Amino acid sequence: MAEHTVTFANTQQAVQVPTGTLLTEAAQRAGITLNQPCGGQGRCGRCAVQVTQGTVRSRSTLRLSPEDVAQGFVLACQAVVEGDVVIDVPPQEKIERRLTTDRTVAAVVPPPNYNPAIHQTLQRLTLQLKPPSMDDQTDDWSRLKWSLEKKLGRGQIEVSLAVLRQLDPALRASDWTVTAVVEDPSWDFCNDCPAHLLDIRPGAVADNDPLWGIAVDIGTTTVSLWLVELLSGEVRAQVAEYNRQITRGEDVISRIIYANKGDGATEMQALVLDTINELVERACKRARVQATDIYKAAITGNSTMMHLLLGLPTNSIRLAPFVTTVNNLPLLRANEVGLHIHPHATVDCLPGVASYVGADITAGVLASGMADSDKITLFLDVGTNGETVMGTSDWLVTCACSAGPAFEGGGVGDGMRATRGAIEEVWVHSETYEPSWRVIGKVKPKGICGSGLISLLAELFITGVIDKGGHYNTHLQCPRVRQSEHGWEYVVAWGSETAHGHDITLTRVDIDNLVRAKAAIYAGFTVLAESVGVPLEAVEQVLIGGSFGKYINVEKAVHLGLLPDLPWENFQFLGNTSVKGAYLALLDRTLRARVQDIASSMTYIELSADNRFYEAFTSALFLPHTDMSKFPSVAKALA
Amino acid sequence: MAEHTVTFANTQQAVQVPTGTLLTEAAQRAGITLNQPCGGQGRCGRCAVQVTQGTVRSRSTLRLSPEDVAQGFVLACQAVVEGDVVIDVPPQEKIERRLTTDRTVAAVVPPPNYNPAIHQTLQRLTLQLKPPSMDDQTDDWSRLKWSLEKKLGRGQIEVSLAVLRQLDPALRASDWTVTAVVEDPSWDFCNDCPAHLLDIRPGAVADNDPLWGIAVDIGTTTVSLWLVELLSGEVRAQVAEYNRQITRGEDVISRIIYANKGDGATEMQALVLDTINELVERACKRARVQATDIYKAAITGNSTMMHLLLGLPTNSIRLAPFVTTVNNLPLLRANEVGLHIHPHATVDCLPGVASYVGADITAGVLASGMADSDKITLFLDVGTNGETVMGTSDWLVTCACSAGPAFEGGGVGDGMRATRGAIEEVWVHSETYEPSWRVIGKVKPKGICGSGLISLLAELFITGVIDKGGHYNTHLQCPRVRQSEHGWEYVVAWGSETAHGHDITLTRVDIDNLVRAKAAIYAGFTVLAESVGVPLEAVEQVLIGGSFGKYINVEKAVHLGLLPDLPWENFQFLGNTSVKGAYLALLDRTLRARVQDIASSMTYIELSADNRFYEAFTSALFLPHTDMSKFPSVAKALA
Repeated sequence: MAEHTVTFANTQQAVQVPTGTLLTEAAQRAGITLNQPCGGQGRCGRCAVQVTQGTVRSRSTLRLSPEDVAQGFVLACQAVVEGDVVIDVPPQEKIERRLTTDRTVAAVVPPPNYNPAIHQTLQRLTLQLKPPSMDDQTDDWSRLKWSLEKKLGRGQIEVSLAVLRQLDPALRASDWTVTAVVEDPSWDFCNDCPAHLLDIRPGAVADNDPLWGIAVDIGTTTVSLWLVELLSGEVRAQVAEYNRQITRGEDVISRIIYANKGDGATEMQALVLDTINELVERACKRARVQATDIYKAAITGNSTMMHLLLGLPTNSIRLAPFVTTVNNLPLLRANEVGLHIHPHATVDCLPGVASYVGADITAGVLASGMADSDKITLFLDVGTNGETVMGTSDWLVTCACSAGPAFEGGGVGDGMRATRGAIEEVWVHSETYEPSWRVIGKVKPKGICGSGLISLLAELFITGVIDKGGHYNTHLQCPRVRQSEHGWEYVVAWGSETAHGHDITLTRVDIDNLVRAKAAIYAGFTVLAESVGVPLEAVEQVLIGGSFGKYINVEKAVHLGLLPDLPWENFQFLGNTSVKGAYLALLDRTLRARVQDIASSMTYIELSADNRFYEAFTSALFLPHTDMSKFPSVAKALA
Repeated sequence: MAEHTVTFANTQQAVQVPTGTLLTEAAQRAGITLNQPCGGQGRCGRCAVQVTQGTVRSRSTLRLSPEDVAQGFVLACQAVVEGDVVIDVPPQEKIERRLTTDRTVAAVVPPPNYNPAIHQTLQRLTLQLKPPSMDDQTDDWSRLKWSLEKKLGRGQIEVSLAVLRQLDPALRASDWTVTAVVEDPSWDFCNDCPAHLLDIRPGAVADNDPLWGIAVDIGTTTVSLWLVELLSGEVRAQVAEYNRQITRGEDVISRIIYANKGDGATEMQALVLDTINELVERACKRARVQATDIYKAAITGNSTMMHLLLGLPTNSIRLAPFVTTVNNLPLLRANEVGLHIHPHATVDCLPGVASYVGADITAGVLASGMADSDKITLFLDVGTNGETVMGTSDWLVTCACSAGPAFEGGGVGDGMRATRGAIEEVWVHSETYEPSWRVIGKVKPKGICGSGLISLLAELFITGVIDKGGHYNTHLQCPRVRQSEHGWEYVVAWGSETAHGHDITLTRVDIDNLVRAKAAIYAGFTVLAESVGVPLEAVEQVLIGGSFGKYINVEKAVHLGLLPDLPWENFQFLGNTSVKGAYLALLDRTLRARVQDIASSMTYIELSADNRFYEAFTSALFLPHTDMSKFPSVAKALA
């Protein structure tokens, strides 16, 4: 096949590629990372590059204006090389580090009435063995095992070949006094399961020497990691970082699509492992801990994140009938997963329920306490998947409503993630319709993040700039409401006020995407409530998980019809319940068993096969809803 | 440190090495393998090389004659480089392939009254699963597991991450009909242990499709492998090859010494794995089987061989109080061991008893049937370690008597292994004292192997060439009995008759080594018999294992006092009982449990700490014994 030269003007790098190669692949070979928030589907327009010499064959120019196309812009993920070309890569949205996430913690007190030390599955024991002699030639392993069994008061201790290889030097290095690290995973159905010797080290330890573990939540956007002392429950460092997979798709569907192309799955696995391993390094540095002293990891994340981490196929998650490879993973070892902690450390991936209700939700339910509460509770994770759980200590129903990435800035022209430069809250003057806003990092704005979009949409609605159908009031005397090539739009910030010099606007298309997202979430609540015959108004508390949740203005979310119209005091923001659940499961075997119970007892309702969902969704495609009687407080505010 | 050039004249290869490097290391870097039967201890003299330019510092010249030293010969394992040198490597003893070992077998009928299929731990099941649907979104693993549990009639099925990764494509490649390979290892104490899913393949299999396993015996000298159809017990190929470790030490002690230098252990592990993997390849080629279709391996070998295979430290086996790392190994996977069969295949290393009574002996006892016999039985493996077991179905005692390598040609000037060119049987004329001999391969002789040495020594004794103290009768009128620089010796073959043109002789030193070896073995019997209060004469059958055993002439071995003086019909040669035991354990879980029982019930007697052994040994340092009343048939023959 013919070879062509692709030159990247920015870095003056040239690569040889055969006819038919995508520009994204050519860039990757040249070591240039192009953002592909939609996973390379040609839908988001973020990988646009300019062809300055030669031509490419472009499969799609969606999201590019005629001017862009005229100037040689193409979507790199849709542009096929057919001759020598020179490419100019414009500056792309950078993955900026969160502003205020990493924390070194002296000691986070565990929840009250909670004594994690007693329920730890990991044990560390010092053993003083009788040395062998000509009268006692017992093999090293039997000698150690018998002593361990005696001390643990149980038989059946398993050992791997790797640990057997350590025995001889460890036993003889310290005059037959050794420290054993044993995992006794009988938190679940398996009471007869053997305990597992993870490590043997020369010498003794003091009872108060720390024993380390990590709780990890793999979010689609952010990975959070807590470094935990396992005997006291103290959290010694909390670190977070964007999931490096983000440049290969912003939502799980885009990631799955990317993972199913070529070596995509291997790349995705490496990216999330790199993210976690860097966080391990950072947390260890902060707390002055050796990473190889970490013997246990509890991991949560949605089912797609978990599958990508473990190198499991993901395509069946995306395609009907939406099935995972596995919801209940066996205990794994750090070295088979690829985590840079102690190579034999136990990796406990918490159980998921379905393709779109994963371990992050079961852990969230645990951490929220709703499964132990008498109150009728609605638990939700406002994000791409809109996972929702309704229930009490007696019953739990759950669904995921595919809200799409609108609330994370996807599918919205000037949408962006909640980083520096994002408008996070908007107020619109009720007479002048002039906006004022708050920007993350107090800099000139670059776009609008999820909470900003909710805020903006609610303000536009309440002030009458848009009607309940989401249409702009085109009769307003306001220069900010104008017609553009994309239809009617509202200018949130003029080019003179922004970081990039372009106007920041909210178009009719953006509004449609946002309304569909909120309608999907609300329809999810409706179906859950209907399925158990409990009216939504009977909900006694609404618990909102996910780090995104805490930035939402409840009043405005109710105005939109995103959240049900309940008294404000019924709402509670719990932050990252997923990592909290992982933390609890890491410390306490009874809580680990509880997550298992929660996962098994949750009734999953598949919305895509449910006609009630489509009806509820259609009714919710208005602001706040077709049926105004469901939102009395909004009716009052409008009046 | 200063670097010097070592040039190997034969291959014109030169390497740069720092001051202090051994010539053996320099040779290795140049890719030249030098035989080191003693493990590089400077004791065997087989690594002699000639320094033709420059000089080296020689730590020892043991086994080199003054003439050799004058001609620049040095022991490569004892010669330290201190300047530029040119080295000539003389032709070395080649590891020749056995003459008649490999066999392709149409079908070896299993032992009578034996139905191995019923007791196989490995099961292969075809499962037809109901495909998932929107009404049944069960994850792949649960779907498969429930179906497997139903078919197996048991719960608790374990799966590895590696197999989970195969599920999605396997299930969808063949319309949800798959074949599962399951190991249910409940042959032992662990009745509650979970079954283990080893593999999942798309499509169905017929009930009579073959299921493959291998039985492997890792001998210090020879590795034997049988390719077995697991459902019928048919042996489809039998192959054997020298253990490639042999160039790094002929006996276990030399191997341990070599393994404890630098990367010796890694090298040893690679050498034995190479040997086994080549045998796997050969057996599979013969039987037209894919190596990845082999799902189970049963492995036997002495404790040192097992430790070297698994990368376990060996030095504690060699040093008092002679302790192994582990006698009872857990079930391992082929990929963690390094066997090139199915990567998740079960590797079952049979249990050993002590440092010098390994799995080869427990397997041998199983195969010999002695543990199920009412007869008082003596089971022995005549080899370097001289492992001996005495017992009945009610009791078993065992010992190892460190006979040394004399019977394998070690420590004897013209000793060699039983390969082409070895004198394997000798007859000495009772009047002329002229010998006649039989040579393996019917070629000119190069040396004498174990059976030849036993034969020669017995003949020399019976004809009066040597007396009961092993001294030459210096008054004989026979040119073959002569005095040399090494003392008195007997010329077995004149230089004109030999392959190399040198005389083949048996010196006084050789005789001492042989007598010490036979005395050690006989003393072992004596101590075992004494320890249970059963006179040696009460032994009802003598079972001789090991491939070496079958070449021994019983009459001559009794004449020497190597074997007890019992009726010939009481002796039976069983061949390689170790691989036979592995074969039985591979097929039948009840027999696998039996080996475990045998290993646990054997009482091991440590001879090196036993005064009775030294007394018995000293008494046996005569031909046939100090106490002639123990050898009535020999007294008769001499008379």
